Amino acid sequence: MRSKPKEIEHTSKVRVRFVETDPLGIVWHGNYIQYFEDGRENFGRHHGISYLDQKEYGFATPIIESKTKHKRPLKYGDVATIKTIFVDSSAAKMIFRYEIYNQENELVCTGETVQVFVDNIGQGELWLTPPDFFTDWKKKVGLLDE
Amino acid sequence: MRSKPKEIEHTSKVRVRFVETDPLGIVWHGNYIQYFEDGRENFGRHHGISYLDQKEYGFATPIIESKTKHKRPLKYGDVATIKTIFVDSSAAKMIFRYEIYNQENELVCTGETVQVFVDNIGQGELWLTPPDFFTDWKKKVGLLDE
Amino acid sequence: MRSKPKEIEHTSKVRVRFVETDPLGIVWHGNYIQYFEDGRENFGRHHGISYLDQKEYGFATPIIESKTKHKRPLKYGDVATIKTIFVDSSAAKMIFRYEIYNQENELVCTGETVQVFVDNIGQGELWLTPPDFFTDWKKKVGLLDE
Amino acid sequence: MRSKPKEIEHTSKVRVRFVETDPLGIVWHGNYIQYFEDGRENFGRHHGISYLDQKEYGFATPIIESKTKHKRPLKYGDVATIKTIFVDSSAAKMIFRYEIYNQENELVCTGETVQVFVDNIGQGELWLTPPDFFTDWKKKVGLLDE
Repeated sequence: MRSKPKEIEHTSKVRVRFVETDPLGIVWHGNYIQYFEDGRENFGRHHGISYLDQKEYGFATPIIESKTKHKRPLKYGDVATIKTIFVDSSAAKMIFRYEIYNQENELVCTGETVQVFVDNIGQGELWLTPPDFFTDWKKKVGLLDE
Repeated sequence: MRSKPKEIEHTSKVRVRFVETDPLGIVWHGNYIQYFEDGRENFGRHHGISYLDQKEYGFATPIIESKTKHKRPLKYGDVATIKTIFVDSSAAKMIFRYEIYNQENELVCTGETVQVFVDNIGQGELWLTPPDFFTDWKKKVGLLDE
Repeated sequence: MRSKPKEIEHTSKVRVRFVETDPLGIVWHGNYIQYFEDGRENFGRHHGISYLDQKEYGFATPIIESKTKHKRPLKYGDVATIKTIFVDSSAAKMIFRYEIYNQENELVCTGETVQVFVDNIGQGELWLTPPDFFTDWKKKVGLLDE
Repeated sequence: MRSKPKEIEHTSKVRVRFVETDPLGIVWHGNYIQYFEDGRENFGRHHGISYLDQKEYGFATPIIESKTKHKRPLKYGDVATIKTIFVDSSAAKMIFRYEIYNQENELVCTGETVQVFVDNIGQGELWLTPPDFFTDWKKKVGLLDE
């Protein structure tokens, strides 16, 4: 019997914008939160769980927690690689880990975000159990048995 | 008989944020659009015509045109002065001019924005004549006779 | 005798980021300045006149003027097309025009920026005549005779 | 004998900007990193340890780690209170904690950042022991004995 995967990942690229760099000539640390979102949305478009997919099901998934660790700087002109990893959990949460690499394939930054489910597009109630669309999605991508 | 003013102005301050400066050590040019909005909203709160005031009347005022001229740079640590000037016009438009000064009172930047009136908070129709709340506001601030 | 072109253009794409949209659900007007820069730098990388190319020659080209006209909104999920057009001029200036289109190929926004040449990467002097590297570039791309 | 404080705090205000809010009508989560920097720099200007103070001593202090927990949203029009707390440590690090409150004095967000010391303004070496200017600063504010 094959064991189910606990993680699914997706890799995408981001080109550092001039406006994202600071007087030290490197990407301002807060912009990595943006890169995580770029990676997460690229993951979401690829795997059918993006912001717009969620919205269609009547949900928003606000971020309740984020962490970032910086190892190396990125500078203007760099094209970074974002590895976005969905971390499976039985909670009513979406957990993603991120790894960002520079063009020499050196680790630049790691991070994690945690999202919860709120119905009625942000005006509504926090869900304490996973909504059906999320359980269905997990089955579709092989994280849960059908 | 006293002639009506054609312009009303309001002055506010903005402190340059680190994130707003670029590798050249100066404020990235696009951030002046943000400073104009800071000035316009400070004007709006002072004179009762801010984004939230407009929203209460059921209107949004998207920007259809903006211009910026840069004379001098601002750098991190600077506290700039924004002069925001409402330019009266009979059209269904809000026109603002902006002058930004550094701490030596030298002109850093000038600009202009043009806004139109859309009802139903951005989902709705463009108004070709000034909405009542705007005409009433002009009377209140002395740009139109009661 | 063939007449020289007066304009060179380059077309690139930009995907609207969630963070770039506002409470009205559309791209905040100031972010178009960023899209213009995306287009200009994509042009620059393609034609060898990007920020990093200029820096190699010891120059920076700060923007002294920008204009934007908004025709239609862009919303989250849109992938816009940026047409960036270099407008030839004998002055010591770089002039670009921009046209941004949505996925239905409707015109969303037009704009223009004007840049000047400053040596020593922004610490230096304004050049009143075009620097050699710029004249050489114009020859290379066919805007000037060799 | 009086025990030394282990923490020093500073409180400042930030007004939510329109551009900082997203299609859900609330502050985009990544902007809290900016609010932390606002709080940290306000702390730094008050206590003489800001970015520009550090630069004068030849140091930059890049952020190597940050954490954010979101409890409640902020929306356009809110004026939030940022409590910035310097957490003393014997390591060659600057550690700050942050608490952000809304106008009803409800906790909106907490966070933490860790910075290290690099000489020659970002081009240089990581310091493994606290630089003199930092030790002197700790004495001045009462965190270390003279």
